[in-house]
Amino acid sequence: MLEKMLINVREKMPLIHNITNYVTVNDCANILLACGGSPIMSDDIGEVEEITAVCGGLNINIGTLNERTVCSMIAAGKKANELGHPVILDPVGAGASALRTNTAYKLLEEVKFSVIRGNISEIKTLALGGGTTKGVDADVADKVTDETLDSVISFAKAFSEKTGAVIVITGATDIVADTQKAYVIKNGVPIMSRITGSGCMLTAMMAAYITANPQHVLEAAAAAVCVMGLCGEKADAVRKEHNAGNASFRNYLIDEVYKLDDAALKEGAKYEIR
Amino acid sequence: MLEKMLINVREKMPLIHNITNYVTVNDCANILLACGGSPIMSDDIGEVEEITAVCGGLNINIGTLNERTVCSMIAAGKKANELGHPVILDPVGAGASALRTNTAYKLLEEVKFSVIRGNISEIKTLALGGGTTKGVDADVADKVTDETLDSVISFAKAFSEKTGAVIVITGATDIVADTQKAYVIKNGVPIMSRITGSGCMLTAMMAAYITANPQHVLEAAAAAVCVMGLCGEKADAVRKEHNAGNASFRNYLIDEVYKLDDAALKEGAKYEIR
Amino acid sequence: MLEKMLINVREKMPLIHNITNYVTVNDCANILLACGGSPIMSDDIGEVEEITAVCGGLNINIGTLNERTVCSMIAAGKKANELGHPVILDPVGAGASALRTNTAYKLLEEVKFSVIRGNISEIKTLALGGGTTKGVDADVADKVTDETLDSVISFAKAFSEKTGAVIVITGATDIVADTQKAYVIKNGVPIMSRITGSGCMLTAMMAAYITANPQHVLEAAAAAVCVMGLCGEKADAVRKEHNAGNASFRNYLIDEVYKLDDAALKEGAKYEIR
Repeated sequence: MLEKMLINVREKMPLIHNITNYVTVNDCANILLACGGSPIMSDDIGEVEEITAVCGGLNINIGTLNERTVCSMIAAGKKANELGHPVILDPVGAGASALRTNTAYKLLEEVKFSVIRGNISEIKTLALGGGTTKGVDADVADKVTDETLDSVISFAKAFSEKTGAVIVITGATDIVADTQKAYVIKNGVPIMSRITGSGCMLTAMMAAYITANPQHVLEAAAAAVCVMGLCGEKADAVRKEHNAGNASFRNYLIDEVYKLDDAALKEGAKYEIR
Repeated sequence: MLEKMLINVREKMPLIHNITNYVTVNDCANILLACGGSPIMSDDIGEVEEITAVCGGLNINIGTLNERTVCSMIAAGKKANELGHPVILDPVGAGASALRTNTAYKLLEEVKFSVIRGNISEIKTLALGGGTTKGVDADVADKVTDETLDSVISFAKAFSEKTGAVIVITGATDIVADTQKAYVIKNGVPIMSRITGSGCMLTAMMAAYITANPQHVLEAAAAAVCVMGLCGEKADAVRKEHNAGNASFRNYLIDEVYKLDDAALKEGAKYEIR
Repeated sequence: MLEKMLINVREKMPLIHNITNYVTVNDCANILLACGGSPIMSDDIGEVEEITAVCGGLNINIGTLNERTVCSMIAAGKKANELGHPVILDPVGAGASALRTNTAYKLLEEVKFSVIRGNISEIKTLALGGGTTKGVDADVADKVTDETLDSVISFAKAFSEKTGAVIVITGATDIVADTQKAYVIKNGVPIMSRITGSGCMLTAMMAAYITANPQHVLEAAAAAVCVMGLCGEKADAVRKEHNAGNASFRNYLIDEVYKLDDAALKEGAKYEIR
């Protein structure tokens, strides 16, 4: 099933509008191209609605947000909703500042999201009005462990119920849940947290997956998570072979996304459904 | 002849002022360094005229433009004109939104460009007040084919007549034309469209080429196109050897520009003059 | 001694707030992760004080500055001072425009810096209200040579006296000085000036070093300079082995920072104390 999601991205080549941070924007564009999609970046209030209209889906990422771009995010989000385009939210650093937290709340109020993807601290901030986000990484106290897995799944399903969005919580174990069903995904390698942008890139790629698979948002989001983690595993093998570090790993990761086909995804995806 | 253009860039090391988008800005800086030039990025209205004055040439790229940077583009462009510095325009996404289209028109009115480089959809938008730009890639309906080549060359020459700029239309076949003469260039590989920034990088490098060769703008622009395409071919061979993907290809492409010498350019450039 | 600085960065994993330019921001984030630190980028006046408060140190880099970000730099700098966090300044292009020069002066007035790092032209601009910065590279007339070394060291010590900051002047020979003592460092390779961001990356990494070693700012800054130069040497060896260019070199450089341990630093650091 998940490999069908990949096939659809490669066939439909969805054009994705990204309003995103300037730290990882280049990586987001290249991973979108790698997976078979096509990116356009645009954040000015004077054009975001038009740009969203020519695209198939919208990716909103609040890293390095500023007053100017917050308005653009809301305008583009509303337009995408109006047109029935899927919209995905990456609440980077929600909980780390009032600006980010309040922007995330405002976006949740004004825009209907198909998917919300963050680490556990960010998602808890959104759901509970709290959390302990330190910077842009998940706080240790929020870590998903074997002991807490069941309760995190219930939490994700409940937050999906509340928002109408598929909830994606990424970390060592990834959870992709709608109100009824959760994928628990075990792909991935630790070095993914030693590059900037592995979260942003996943969200951007996920935008392409859900746009190419509008009838299967849960499966499309789960497929994107598996692709990212599996390509991380493959890229880390290449990295070790070359005795390389995190910068080369970043390139290898995007390379593996470029090369991945449906058979390799089918073989390598490690998940269970709960 | 074209290889002399490369030699001049390496000898004169032109300093280029770039007002460009935040998606591919790092790649533009690195390719400028690779080809033998030197980059400075600056977009604040408070300094763009001064920065342009210490540079040899100016590169204006309208990707991710916003209200703040549009003014800076015009101010810097006028200053560069006043000083007799070459100015190049990359109308990224012209036709995809009114903001981009109108900004491109305004720039054409207010600033005299030495070169305008875009894909066929973007250039048609500029020339005809129309076009069918979808996002930042050329529309299929606008594709340059063997059948349409003659008419596209005539179109480019006419637009050169109208603007006084050398017109560069890039795609599978590239056209570099002034009012009298057109280079039709066949270097390049398909994967160049699977990385972000191959167009932006070409424009940035071309700024260095025309700045180092002010008496030969047509040849300098054609040389930059050949360099980019030829280095793409070489980089793709390296990529295949390493079984790599688009992210590594991007690095190899800049690497090849870094390594290219005049003899290799002379040997590898594939063009005819029409 | 210097290797102890590296060990502390890897153990303490300092979180660094970066207000920096959009050209090299991704590289700065990845080198911070490579050295053992953790980055957060944020420049909006609505959140910079909060973000600084959750971090351990602050990196202010004035490349691609604009009116909006200048206020944020000052607000964050004051907050960091209030909290006793180390703050580092990279005056990119000071001397190249009045905006950059005046912003640097204003920052020196309003914020107390632990370290100021630039090339000789930039530092002279700050110290003497002059200098001959052309673009973002040091002017040839300002070059540190064997003949001028003594006077540059005296100059750096005097500027340290005036500012209370450790002064870091980088070039073919690097000088790291407080009022009493100067490290003269000879690590590094010429190709480091053929990538964008080697200065910005050093400053970002140095922020992690001084944050993890607050009692030893001089030694921490010197250690960061040695790490950068030494990793440049190692990366250039890898580059030559692969017959690669500047883009791959950039990745190898960050990779080497990722891999470097205290023993390799001890063995490879080339410096004398004056």
